[in-house]
Amino acid sequence: MTRMVAPSLETLADLERTLHTEIPLTRAMGVSVARFDATGLTLRAPLEPNINHKSTAFGGSLATLATLAGWGLLQLLLREQPPVTVVIQESSVQYLLPVAEDMQATCAMPPAGELEKFLRNLARKGMARIELEVLIPAGGETAVKFHGRFVALDKHRYPHAQPV
Amino acid sequence: MTRMVAPSLETLADLERTLHTEIPLTRAMGVSVARFDATGLTLRAPLEPNINHKSTAFGGSLATLATLAGWGLLQLLLREQPPVTVVIQESSVQYLLPVAEDMQATCAMPPAGELEKFLRNLARKGMARIELEVLIPAGGETAVKFHGRFVALDKHRYPHAQPV
Repeated sequence: MTRMVAPSLETLADLERTLHTEIPLTRAMGVSVARFDATGLTLRAPLEPNINHKSTAFGGSLATLATLAGWGLLQLLLREQPPVTVVIQESSVQYLLPVAEDMQATCAMPPAGELEKFLRNLARKGMARIELEVLIPAGGETAVKFHGRFVALDKHRYPHAQPV
Repeated sequence: MTRMVAPSLETLADLERTLHTEIPLTRAMGVSVARFDATGLTLRAPLEPNINHKSTAFGGSLATLATLAGWGLLQLLLREQPPVTVVIQESSVQYLLPVAEDMQATCAMPPAGELEKFLRNLARKGMARIELEVLIPAGGETAVKFHGRFVALDKHRYPHAQPV
């Protein structure tokens, strides 16, 4: 069983700080950490700095916020592990509806079995892959569907690895 | 035959201005228009404002620059047409290598037959779809492969359409 350590408010503030420090574009986008619980992680970003030529959310901002939600969820899930580097390997995005409101991207907690396998591979091989799904709603409907494959690498065992 | 009107420097400056005005995030990213000819459109962005936690280009910035290269190419190809709105419907990205240099995204000109069909559909139905490929190199190799499906809508015939 994966032990789900309840996050403190500090943990969420830490993640937001990490995002703003290590990925400066998140400051320009106004990204904040909204919620983390057993169902997943939600990130937010206001519409205004992320607007497009149609006065709705820019596709690049939507894809970026979704990518960050996946990356952020893994940061939180792996915070009790030896230091790891998490990178994205592949993603796909379906833009179903325009988003004319502040953006909210929720990365769903992966199924327990997937998470177990991911953590087991990481412990055994020092490297593991996982698939994550992120949804962004608009007006109560699903507006954006994101699917990403992420890779985690144990920093001690792969100090110079850069598989992206 | 599609008539390829040679772009003036003004045309490229216009596109850069359009990007910076209509999609403000492109200013934070430092996006510029580098080149447009019969082979495609190249956009650039410096590494520094687009850096990630590994001191290479952030995946979100890479996907965003690729999306903009596709969108920008269609803006240029459709500049002699009645006013159209161009939106993205679907995309997929493969992150093959880290990018530790300024980013350069080249959207290839679609095959002549595809482009003809796209323009014919747009003229006939006021709406047309097209698939575009964008590559971002690093150290002389392909680092990022982007595939996007874009939709163009005639503004006169679809004044309120928002298919994203």
